[in-house]
Amino acid sequence: MNFVSDNVYGVDEAILSAMVEANDQLATPAYGADAWTKRALAKLDEVFECKVHAFLLTSGTAANGLGLSSMAQSFNAVLCYGDAHINVDECGAPVMFTGGAKLYGIDDVRGKVSSASVAAGLAGFVRGERDSKPSVVSLTQASELGTVYSRDEIAEIAELAHGHGLKVHVDGARFANALVAQNCSPAELTWKAGVDALSFGATKNGAMALEAVILFDDKLAEGFGHRRLRGGQLLSKGRFLGAQMEAYLTDDRWLKNAARANEQARRLADGLAKVQGVRIPLGCDANLVFPIMPQTLHHRLQAAGALYHPWPGMGPGVDCPGENEVFVRMVTSFATPSEDVDKLIAVALAG
Amino acid sequence: MNFVSDNVYGVDEAILSAMVEANDQLATPAYGADAWTKRALAKLDEVFECKVHAFLLTSGTAANGLGLSSMAQSFNAVLCYGDAHINVDECGAPVMFTGGAKLYGIDDVRGKVSSASVAAGLAGFVRGERDSKPSVVSLTQASELGTVYSRDEIAEIAELAHGHGLKVHVDGARFANALVAQNCSPAELTWKAGVDALSFGATKNGAMALEAVILFDDKLAEGFGHRRLRGGQLLSKGRFLGAQMEAYLTDDRWLKNAARANEQARRLADGLAKVQGVRIPLGCDANLVFPIMPQTLHHRLQAAGALYHPWPGMGPGVDCPGENEVFVRMVTSFATPSEDVDKLIAVALAG
Amino acid sequence: MNFVSDNVYGVDEAILSAMVEANDQLATPAYGADAWTKRALAKLDEVFECKVHAFLLTSGTAANGLGLSSMAQSFNAVLCYGDAHINVDECGAPVMFTGGAKLYGIDDVRGKVSSASVAAGLAGFVRGERDSKPSVVSLTQASELGTVYSRDEIAEIAELAHGHGLKVHVDGARFANALVAQNCSPAELTWKAGVDALSFGATKNGAMALEAVILFDDKLAEGFGHRRLRGGQLLSKGRFLGAQMEAYLTDDRWLKNAARANEQARRLADGLAKVQGVRIPLGCDANLVFPIMPQTLHHRLQAAGALYHPWPGMGPGVDCPGENEVFVRMVTSFATPSEDVDKLIAVALAG
Amino acid sequence: MNFVSDNVYGVDEAILSAMVEANDQLATPAYGADAWTKRALAKLDEVFECKVHAFLLTSGTAANGLGLSSMAQSFNAVLCYGDAHINVDECGAPVMFTGGAKLYGIDDVRGKVSSASVAAGLAGFVRGERDSKPSVVSLTQASELGTVYSRDEIAEIAELAHGHGLKVHVDGARFANALVAQNCSPAELTWKAGVDALSFGATKNGAMALEAVILFDDKLAEGFGHRRLRGGQLLSKGRFLGAQMEAYLTDDRWLKNAARANEQARRLADGLAKVQGVRIPLGCDANLVFPIMPQTLHHRLQAAGALYHPWPGMGPGVDCPGENEVFVRMVTSFATPSEDVDKLIAVALAG
Repeated sequence: MNFVSDNVYGVDEAILSAMVEANDQLATPAYGADAWTKRALAKLDEVFECKVHAFLLTSGTAANGLGLSSMAQSFNAVLCYGDAHINVDECGAPVMFTGGAKLYGIDDVRGKVSSASVAAGLAGFVRGERDSKPSVVSLTQASELGTVYSRDEIAEIAELAHGHGLKVHVDGARFANALVAQNCSPAELTWKAGVDALSFGATKNGAMALEAVILFDDKLAEGFGHRRLRGGQLLSKGRFLGAQMEAYLTDDRWLKNAARANEQARRLADGLAKVQGVRIPLGCDANLVFPIMPQTLHHRLQAAGALYHPWPGMGPGVDCPGENEVFVRMVTSFATPSEDVDKLIAVALAG
Repeated sequence: MNFVSDNVYGVDEAILSAMVEANDQLATPAYGADAWTKRALAKLDEVFECKVHAFLLTSGTAANGLGLSSMAQSFNAVLCYGDAHINVDECGAPVMFTGGAKLYGIDDVRGKVSSASVAAGLAGFVRGERDSKPSVVSLTQASELGTVYSRDEIAEIAELAHGHGLKVHVDGARFANALVAQNCSPAELTWKAGVDALSFGATKNGAMALEAVILFDDKLAEGFGHRRLRGGQLLSKGRFLGAQMEAYLTDDRWLKNAARANEQARRLADGLAKVQGVRIPLGCDANLVFPIMPQTLHHRLQAAGALYHPWPGMGPGVDCPGENEVFVRMVTSFATPSEDVDKLIAVALAG
Repeated sequence: MNFVSDNVYGVDEAILSAMVEANDQLATPAYGADAWTKRALAKLDEVFECKVHAFLLTSGTAANGLGLSSMAQSFNAVLCYGDAHINVDECGAPVMFTGGAKLYGIDDVRGKVSSASVAAGLAGFVRGERDSKPSVVSLTQASELGTVYSRDEIAEIAELAHGHGLKVHVDGARFANALVAQNCSPAELTWKAGVDALSFGATKNGAMALEAVILFDDKLAEGFGHRRLRGGQLLSKGRFLGAQMEAYLTDDRWLKNAARANEQARRLADGLAKVQGVRIPLGCDANLVFPIMPQTLHHRLQAAGALYHPWPGMGPGVDCPGENEVFVRMVTSFATPSEDVDKLIAVALAG
Repeated sequence: MNFVSDNVYGVDEAILSAMVEANDQLATPAYGADAWTKRALAKLDEVFECKVHAFLLTSGTAANGLGLSSMAQSFNAVLCYGDAHINVDECGAPVMFTGGAKLYGIDDVRGKVSSASVAAGLAGFVRGERDSKPSVVSLTQASELGTVYSRDEIAEIAELAHGHGLKVHVDGARFANALVAQNCSPAELTWKAGVDALSFGATKNGAMALEAVILFDDKLAEGFGHRRLRGGQLLSKGRFLGAQMEAYLTDDRWLKNAARANEQARRLADGLAKVQGVRIPLGCDANLVFPIMPQTLHHRLQAAGALYHPWPGMGPGVDCPGENEVFVRMVTSFATPSEDVDKLIAVALAG
């Protein structure tokens, strides 16, 4: 019963098979000039219903850092939710890739910023040249607390951002999970809503090590190939990135995987919600569940072999754990066995 | 007949199988805490006959940049051969990872620096605080021109470097090829000769995307985990790096692959040397062959489907192409078919 | 009546005279090799009762950034009060000079951190390699809210910091003001209490453009001359920095200037405290006064020509402005006319 | 007899007086909002016959680094003469200020690049994304070898550069000396010839510590105020920079000073040219003289108290010192006494 993260699981069989098959061809052009990568990029254009600038790489941290580097110079500020991955989990990688831009955490609730909190954040830049100059709003989709941004929410934030001369970046490590949670298209949830750049994650959703930086604005793509190489993210045997992405997008595998992960999370949330003393204040939009539960239940689950992390916090403004309670994060993936979900619920109900 | 580079070939079957098998286990700890990575790191200790600090990652450029960042601060200079990969092929990645260190190209011949040319390079730092302060000598093993450093050569350079307070870094993208070209152990060719840090390449020699930064000096390892994560090089599904490295080192597969690549290069060199008008002034130490050949031959080879790159230069001090001659680079790998070598030689001889 | 900042005033006559006199000598060695600089550095040794590494430069922002760069690498974190100058007023300069270190604002009250809040800050670094690694605690002396650190407070913080492997940095833009507010020596307030590096400010206290980075730890000084030059802070006509510092330290001018500034602030605070509706919750340790006053009074003062800034905030935990009240900052300097203080108080009392 | 550099001399009396007078006013707005700075900026507009974006600061190294940072991002290359100040005398400052741009030294003669050598330099960027992407050509005016660029030479280089999408930067530490050496206006020698940004030096020509970054392209000025502050170059008591610049430009003082310096150099060159065994292969365009002289003469001059530097080299392609000869640099300034020139020549002739 492993609910620690979606990346504790391995690789989707179809994706792994595609990688193995890509090995059948003896020699191919290196550095992304191979046929797999070309087909993968063409598929990304289809998926997003426009000609995008897409760059395949291996790391979500690098994807965020490189994407941001096209929109933020050394003296700029990137506004994001205070506990955003780029702000608290990447050891300053965006600072390195941008050459010094400042991450400016915005206070808000439930893992998401809003046009109101972004406006308030911008209003805090009162020191003129002493402040870094805001140039980007970055959203995490799905957020670190498992909530998702609707296209209307994004559009509202993007309108505000663009009105202030800022670009909109989306950290989409769990973009697929956020997408299938809603009734809209990849295009509607990105460039049609005003998104300028997307870290399009695949690793957590079944790939081995694959993310794409997708730039919807031609200007941002200038020199980006140099940035990727300089960032140590241009793989020589690029066919194995191309093969992953091609398989990921083929037959809607990415959407099916995400739907399955979300479904397991939904079942987990529904099951836990029935347990005495458990509350799930953030609901369950995507593939993360954040229950508040009695310590006794927590210990019983652990004793039964359930793996997951107590979570440092969900920020202000929502229900929070009382005495003898614990706030935890449980994550499901495309590969989480249904039985594991059933078993965890059964253990919880048996208390 | 693809001799463009060793990275145009795919993945060694044994390594790919190990990756596929690593997928059998459903869930494992992420970020390198898995069993494959642990076994791989233990094997690296064995291979180098000491407890090393080893960090697995996906890119040779990142391996060099991160390794150098442990030895060079913003105001430091890194001395290397003028056409070293770190100086001319990485779009300034070492500058980014070190936060600004200057690469200082040393004039020398045959792709290698010597203790004499390093001493001359150091003597050029006459401007005091106006100059960057040298802190590292970086060697490429095997060099960009296919030549190799003997342990005595390394020891002589290292003694000089250490005497000036500099560290010794080795870009070992083709370390295995250089090693099997000589009669000595990995330890003898590295820390026993005074090497402080090594980019231990595996991708070119049969892995999919795998390099290791190996630090022989405890001090250099301080904070290195932070550096790797910040550099976007800590993979979440780390088991697939661990599995690659474990398979790479098991049963001397890395040495066998390198030996096979070197053997093909040797055969290629020997065959071409017999062709009218062909000269191979740099010899053939490892898995790269740099013939000077008549343009007519070059065209015939290309017409026959041989792939390889004309090379921008071999620097001063050696034989160089005359009129109607061309200088080219041919690279062999663990997977280069013997028949391709035979065929190329046959075409050349048939002129 | 200008209380906007201490830097709206010009240059102490004695210092300006010294600069003019330094011009008498036609030609002198450039770049700090002149006699004025040598004498100034010797005086700094005397003042701090030990052999210090001192570097003269023109900017407090650069002094902080360069000083921190000797103690924090790219992956490190610098802990400081949330509203510290280095965190909110320098547009990320410390990030540039350190090559990417993260400033980590600590929540505390009255402009100062304490060993308790630093300990709590350190306890927040729970994410391992995902977090920047703390390497420095930076204190502002006097603080941005005009409060001062006692030697005991510093010693307690330094003991904690050193125990965790961190260095202690002091932003002493108003070091003189903080020093004369207390009964102790420069040495006692710095290295004897555990301070490793000090930005020793002179500009606000009567110099034209002069700060010194003072390093009490030999190791931190390695390569610092390179850092200063690279940072654009090695002046060619260095005699004019040396002359300023020499005059600043001669006959305790720096202490006298600071004492005079503090005295005016004390008179201002005492006078305002007697005015109906005015509160001064932070007291007046040095040369800054932060009254809370009725808006009506604020408007009357402004109408009378008093210049000062409403202040964005004093953080949590203290008295704060109610409705129809305003929180303002008033700063005095060595040159603030006594009559201006008298006049402002008179206007305030006349309401 | 000090010919070591133009910066061994002090401050022009008129400029120093202006600084002293600026101190008469008790309090003024800080950070460049003072009246002196405003008048100085207006004068710069006049001097350059257009509305320029001008930023006053204290250091030529910072002026170059900040100016370049508006034109070169981390992955860009700046082309310049191999021994340009930015490349060999600033300890990598341009790398820090640009966040990693590569300086690419161009081989050419007499301290200057030409459109031909820049074209050849650009032709060397054959490695695609592996190379840094050229974005700037930087010229030194007057050059490190005392030669000057004519407006036609600049226009030719600028046309080439702009045609390749590059900007043109001029390091004008000795811009005044180069200007008065020619019959043209400041506008003709800069923006009318295609220059996009200029480091406008004043320190070497009579100021105390004063340079200006002058941007002729609106786009380059975006965020530049942030850059300057972040770079530690926004002085609080800005009136003293404004006062320097105002006095520098008033009554053509800057032109008169430069003319005087150039005249002394011309006299020095003419005098030395008459000495047996002395050659001056670079001529004397501005205020630098580079004689090749017999060692015996060199020793005699030194024995007589003449100060100047033997020079590391003048690069290829020109006459060079033979055995028993030495190549030296002699610099004159606005303040070099005529008698010193006379005396040096007399000593030389007396051999």
